[in-house]
Amino acid sequence: MPLRGIVPPMVTPLSGRDRLDVPGLERLVEHILSGGVQGLFLLGSTGEGPGLSYALRRELIDRVCRQVARRIPVLVGITDTSYAESLRIASHAADDGAEAVVLAPPCYFPPGQDDLYRYVHNLAGESPLPVFLYNMPGLCKVAFEPETVRRLLDLPGVVGLKDSSADMIYFHEVRRIVRERPEFSLLVGPEQLLAEAVRCGAHGGVCGGANLVPRLYVDLYEAARTDDREQAASLHERVMEIARLLYTVESGAAGYLKGLKCALACVGLCDDALAEPLHRFDDLSRSLIRERLERLEIEATVRS
Amino acid sequence: MPLRGIVPPMVTPLSGRDRLDVPGLERLVEHILSGGVQGLFLLGSTGEGPGLSYALRRELIDRVCRQVARRIPVLVGITDTSYAESLRIASHAADDGAEAVVLAPPCYFPPGQDDLYRYVHNLAGESPLPVFLYNMPGLCKVAFEPETVRRLLDLPGVVGLKDSSADMIYFHEVRRIVRERPEFSLLVGPEQLLAEAVRCGAHGGVCGGANLVPRLYVDLYEAARTDDREQAASLHERVMEIARLLYTVESGAAGYLKGLKCALACVGLCDDALAEPLHRFDDLSRSLIRERLERLEIEATVRS
Amino acid sequence: MPLRGIVPPMVTPLSGRDRLDVPGLERLVEHILSGGVQGLFLLGSTGEGPGLSYALRRELIDRVCRQVARRIPVLVGITDTSYAESLRIASHAADDGAEAVVLAPPCYFPPGQDDLYRYVHNLAGESPLPVFLYNMPGLCKVAFEPETVRRLLDLPGVVGLKDSSADMIYFHEVRRIVRERPEFSLLVGPEQLLAEAVRCGAHGGVCGGANLVPRLYVDLYEAARTDDREQAASLHERVMEIARLLYTVESGAAGYLKGLKCALACVGLCDDALAEPLHRFDDLSRSLIRERLERLEIEATVRS
Amino acid sequence: MPLRGIVPPMVTPLSGRDRLDVPGLERLVEHILSGGVQGLFLLGSTGEGPGLSYALRRELIDRVCRQVARRIPVLVGITDTSYAESLRIASHAADDGAEAVVLAPPCYFPPGQDDLYRYVHNLAGESPLPVFLYNMPGLCKVAFEPETVRRLLDLPGVVGLKDSSADMIYFHEVRRIVRERPEFSLLVGPEQLLAEAVRCGAHGGVCGGANLVPRLYVDLYEAARTDDREQAASLHERVMEIARLLYTVESGAAGYLKGLKCALACVGLCDDALAEPLHRFDDLSRSLIRERLERLEIEATVRS
Repeated sequence: MPLRGIVPPMVTPLSGRDRLDVPGLERLVEHILSGGVQGLFLLGSTGEGPGLSYALRRELIDRVCRQVARRIPVLVGITDTSYAESLRIASHAADDGAEAVVLAPPCYFPPGQDDLYRYVHNLAGESPLPVFLYNMPGLCKVAFEPETVRRLLDLPGVVGLKDSSADMIYFHEVRRIVRERPEFSLLVGPEQLLAEAVRCGAHGGVCGGANLVPRLYVDLYEAARTDDREQAASLHERVMEIARLLYTVESGAAGYLKGLKCALACVGLCDDALAEPLHRFDDLSRSLIRERLERLEIEATVRS
Repeated sequence: MPLRGIVPPMVTPLSGRDRLDVPGLERLVEHILSGGVQGLFLLGSTGEGPGLSYALRRELIDRVCRQVARRIPVLVGITDTSYAESLRIASHAADDGAEAVVLAPPCYFPPGQDDLYRYVHNLAGESPLPVFLYNMPGLCKVAFEPETVRRLLDLPGVVGLKDSSADMIYFHEVRRIVRERPEFSLLVGPEQLLAEAVRCGAHGGVCGGANLVPRLYVDLYEAARTDDREQAASLHERVMEIARLLYTVESGAAGYLKGLKCALACVGLCDDALAEPLHRFDDLSRSLIRERLERLEIEATVRS
Repeated sequence: MPLRGIVPPMVTPLSGRDRLDVPGLERLVEHILSGGVQGLFLLGSTGEGPGLSYALRRELIDRVCRQVARRIPVLVGITDTSYAESLRIASHAADDGAEAVVLAPPCYFPPGQDDLYRYVHNLAGESPLPVFLYNMPGLCKVAFEPETVRRLLDLPGVVGLKDSSADMIYFHEVRRIVRERPEFSLLVGPEQLLAEAVRCGAHGGVCGGANLVPRLYVDLYEAARTDDREQAASLHERVMEIARLLYTVESGAAGYLKGLKCALACVGLCDDALAEPLHRFDDLSRSLIRERLERLEIEATVRS
Repeated sequence: MPLRGIVPPMVTPLSGRDRLDVPGLERLVEHILSGGVQGLFLLGSTGEGPGLSYALRRELIDRVCRQVARRIPVLVGITDTSYAESLRIASHAADDGAEAVVLAPPCYFPPGQDDLYRYVHNLAGESPLPVFLYNMPGLCKVAFEPETVRRLLDLPGVVGLKDSSADMIYFHEVRRIVRERPEFSLLVGPEQLLAEAVRCGAHGGVCGGANLVPRLYVDLYEAARTDDREQAASLHERVMEIARLLYTVESGAAGYLKGLKCALACVGLCDDALAEPLHRFDDLSRSLIRERLERLEIEATVRS
């Protein structure tokens, strides 16, 4: 710490309702780590955290922390509608040796900024692990407004912000606020914005595509960080192409997740069962993903 | 069953973080029942269901079912981002003698209508209790579209719909669909629409204000049902006035809940602690509520 | 005045880009008047007012005012992004003998409530004709909030409100405010809400379907007004059926307008050209409308 | 042509309702041109185009084209709810020697993508001047989706796109599409995104702040274009500061415009009257702007 680089939001391999695909999980973890990533983020949106039972969330944290064995830091999403349950996962993650927890606003009643501040204030005060804020207004209804971020920075337990708003004006606002805190980590969510965000001061990215081709994102991060403009442009193009081809077979926020899980299944990494209320692609959509993976020549990349 | 009449969505009296206000709960239950209501709905939006720990949700169901002792049917909200946890609450509710469960779409990744159908299909198939659909697009991002309602009606476990959309055109669409099923219950959420919805074929209402003045809503339901136009108009006016004065001290969806809980505290029924991420009114807002309660002459009503 | 009853928002029959279908217009006006309506509203949303050139808007006002010849009051929509142009149409309408103008918030930069108040204050002060407010947040981004309505009521030139929000809670709020002004007209937009709005105190409706079957809406208004419950329920069903079948062939706000114009063309009343940026249905959609008109047995109604 | 660089969206100096502030206009034009800008864009959102009468729009085009006298290309916004009026302004602009017109989707009935394509197809076919698309979903409700941009690129008259969506993922999508057309101009709207957009392939920016300090934006464009990283970062900071201080005194989309016009008045460039339905800041807000201008040391910049 402070965290720098690519921290993939790991999908949660499932083999059925509320059952882990254990062999798939083990393969996936090694696959991601082999890409040279600097951290691993469990139970985020991509990890379908809120959709899983608590027993399964705990099992996942146990297994992954054991398998990673401190090779890289593990971050654990504790976003939940219930404060008490968020805290319980945080304690469990601490016991398992996780590095930090990641917290988005509870998504049922949208809190105002003052309620949101007090919520994080309380939770960070009780959490045994440091807290990353997770700005995700698309799914959580409310954002951490810049002024709220400024106030939260003063809390000792708050160590980073993952911005998944896809709003670069917001990003610039927040970067200005956090740059006075050198130990703070500012990570960007949407992989299509990784290159420019890193060039503008982000410390890394939480890229869903890094489940599939982790090295690509690690290389792009490096190229952007070291200002290798040509390399960054070329890798950024590839990231755009992946997003355009794999995340858009179904529209809506869930289309990204279904496409990613289906692609992981097609290349043999893990099963593509999803947590309710989502369901895996039908055969038609799956064949589309398969065809696009070929066009992208992803399979070779994964197997190499 | 089929359920008809006023089914208050009970607030969950809390005396602190994740702790029930037990004496307040007992008072509140008796107060509501004394108003002549036809059912009691726990752990809905008003009951802050998703915000509570599972242990507390179970304790609440236990206590209320025991206290109500089948005097009226108890419905239990099982809306949750996790399917497995929803099902566990349903089982617990069944063990305690609840009559039915109430299910809104999981509010994290918004499902498409087909995913939503399959989600309810699966859950209703496994639930030990019959299921009321809970249409609440304002908080859950997606609605049960009329065509989805039509498909879900064919499932044996689906027995009712609570429509909290505040969209009367939607209500008319759905009413047309459900009227072929005489055993089905169509309830309306916003109390400001109770009178017209009942006149147009709703079987009852899930009125938050019935925590405070249950008799008012029972009387309005009766007046609307029996087409006592003058009485309905006069009681409807009072409902509008309560909503205008007590639910608007703070703007946003949570303003209703904070105002209602504060009013219940002011009249001495129960504590007004809220589940995180919400927090009770400050003194200024509370004095506003107190003053408006006086203007409404609510206290006398409650004490009588 | 005050205006009471059905005031159809007339579609503007076009035979091409910015050219009136004059014979169609004449037929349509007589057809609507033959239904016993109490007013005629030109250049609203349904009339595609903002989409037409000013020359064509003036020609339309001229022709219709001449044809109607004060048999019923004519209202003219002056909603426009430009204040000066709104005022010029108002003057033209006054010269032609129109009764009032109808004004929604300008739809480009959404004004705050204070800007909106001052805008109406200024415009109503300069308008030679009395002003109906037109609440249409779906297309105009902002609503006339109840408190703004209350302030605007004090202006001498403001004589009515057409509420097209489809939000019955809003309607009840506004009705409470305006009922202290017996000379004021409160009209409801969505025809699916005509029955209940009239029962709750609306003075009439601005029903798009009244272009096609004006008598139906006039009869429904009468049934609701006189509290003939059975008759109102039956006519309301028919209104719902028309909306469900004719306005939904294409989704989105424009689907209503395209469906309505296509239906008018199918029954031979007028051409179904639309003002840019909209375009008439293709053959497939048109055949769907034709088929549904048969199912509704509308043609017979129109011809009789 | 093709257009490259900074093309300020000029505010329209008004001295009252529908009256130009002619001396202010003349000062403002020279002030902007003195900054070394590469074009001038009249009657956009910042220019309150849709809010002005047609007579005033014509007068403005006349005066500015005469004053600019082809020193730089003049672009003219023709966005309007009425196709015929848009075309008339285009003709007027052509007669006056403007270089191109700029067209956003009509903002009343939101068109679908197919209607939108046909609308532009028709209008670009009739326009005497080449057309820039103007993507502004925040005010126009709909975006030009990437696939629609691709189709529109094949039309001979479409020569550029101004993207004001503030959505950099969209920007990357569109940039990929347009880069096959070297004569095409891709401009970015929000000035806070100018630096990164230019580094990622934008050909320039349409920056509102360039009304006030045009040189800053010209310099930032050059720094970004030539990859002078340090200079770009420093100028970008200043742009962010201007936006944060001057555009946020009032919230909402109009707050930017009111703040900008007020600042222009404070430094003595032109009057800050706004077109209805907006109104200039009150004294309190104006003193806030004045104070912030001092903090920014803008006045010295302007006077120098």
